Amino acid sequence: MESGAGAASTPRALPYFVASSQLLGLTVVAMTGAWLGLYRGGIAWEGALQFNVHPLCMVIGLVFLQGDALLVYRVFRNEAKRTTKVLHGLLHVFAFVIALVGLVAVFDYHKKEGYADLYSLHSWCGILVFALYFVQWTVGFSFFLFPGASFSLRSRYRPQHVFFGATIFLLSVGTALLGLKEALLFKLGADYSKFEPEGVLANTLGLLLVCFGVLVLYILTPAEWKRPPQAEEQALSMDFKTLTEGDSPSSQ
Amino acid sequence: MESGAGAASTPRALPYFVASSQLLGLTVVAMTGAWLGLYRGGIAWEGALQFNVHPLCMVIGLVFLQGDALLVYRVFRNEAKRTTKVLHGLLHVFAFVIALVGLVAVFDYHKKEGYADLYSLHSWCGILVFALYFVQWTVGFSFFLFPGASFSLRSRYRPQHVFFGATIFLLSVGTALLGLKEALLFKLGADYSKFEPEGVLANTLGLLLVCFGVLVLYILTPAEWKRPPQAEEQALSMDFKTLTEGDSPSSQ
Repeated sequence: MESGAGAASTPRALPYFVASSQLLGLTVVAMTGAWLGLYRGGIAWEGALQFNVHPLCMVIGLVFLQGDALLVYRVFRNEAKRTTKVLHGLLHVFAFVIALVGLVAVFDYHKKEGYADLYSLHSWCGILVFALYFVQWTVGFSFFLFPGASFSLRSRYRPQHVFFGATIFLLSVGTALLGLKEALLFKLGADYSKFEPEGVLANTLGLLLVCFGVLVLYILTPAEWKRPPQAEEQALSMDFKTLTEGDSPSSQ
Repeated sequence: MESGAGAASTPRALPYFVASSQLLGLTVVAMTGAWLGLYRGGIAWEGALQFNVHPLCMVIGLVFLQGDALLVYRVFRNEAKRTTKVLHGLLHVFAFVIALVGLVAVFDYHKKEGYADLYSLHSWCGILVFALYFVQWTVGFSFFLFPGASFSLRSRYRPQHVFFGATIFLLSVGTALLGLKEALLFKLGADYSKFEPEGVLANTLGLLLVCFGVLVLYILTPAEWKRPPQAEEQALSMDFKTLTEGDSPSSQ
């Protein structure tokens, strides 16, 4: 393993990539608002407009905020690890609560209008994402923020947490695309094929959602962009490493 | 960097994950065939059934074979690197050709039936995936199989190739889900919400596609599951590293 520098400098290209991701994320949120405002009558908690709360909340919570929560460890590189962790956990809480409002909105709307629930691929993927997100947050909290878990347990769980974090985020983006497609086909029907302005706007929104997902994943990938351990964390980690390796030589 | 062993042993869990991925991939292909056979009248190059060539080819080519091409370096760990590379490139060629047949099928079908092309989010994502796949293969071939590229150029391009390879694969899975959703909504319409058997089967197929994508990504992720360099490759790489690092100290 390469030796990590203490208070490390930020890799040169990273700020540009992070800035682009924020610009793209805000564009996606604004464009979702524009789509709902221009072609779907805007947003309200009552009547037919209640449905529109769903896509807006999901894009803000499960796409934009979830994506930003993943980027916290790349952006805050020299802050204390605990502060960064708390911010990561809090952003996920905000994302989850906003997504929950979006979920309540669509179920409530379906109930009032007498529509069936959970029959479509979008809804199946959505419920899967939501359940996985809740489990991931709860398990993450108990391992990394709750003081009980041992260092070796944390080290073994960390790669799983990172993998499933990225996976749930990508699934969220995919589910958003399925929902967008469903909304377009239900309303436009055969007119979708006539390149209606709403269809073109929503397709563009779909491609931008994909770009945001790919950009966040791209920022998460390079090893040299990962948050370097601070000097004191590194000393601690070496102590624990020696301890745990000495502790159980036959463990897998 | 950890020192890689020469002829390395296979990590204990890897074969089980690879076997599960193959089982899942074949299930996805079989289920696509079953869906088309049971509810869409089967497959033919003439008439209305020509459309059905499209989903089957895409699932075989851009999902199953593309996924397997990514796994080649995890499965063939002790074979010569060149052999593994050629297999990786060849599997991608097969995937590309099969996908091309799927693409021709749908454009030909649209033309015969007088349907519009490239208006939906599925088609936009599909064309994007197809173009990226072609560019990725061509650039990959020129860097890694064509003998011209220097060692340092290959090393710098490799992480990009790996990242975009995984991204294009995930985009392919996402595009397949969008297509499945489109096919369901066009045919079932309001009956989709009545839990028609076709809808339930296709939703399940959608979830299995997601599982296959996640499983392939999971196998690609752990550093210790990556193909270790063979003894002679490592010696060569050290020589080149010294050479190239000494060669251009001021390069980025």
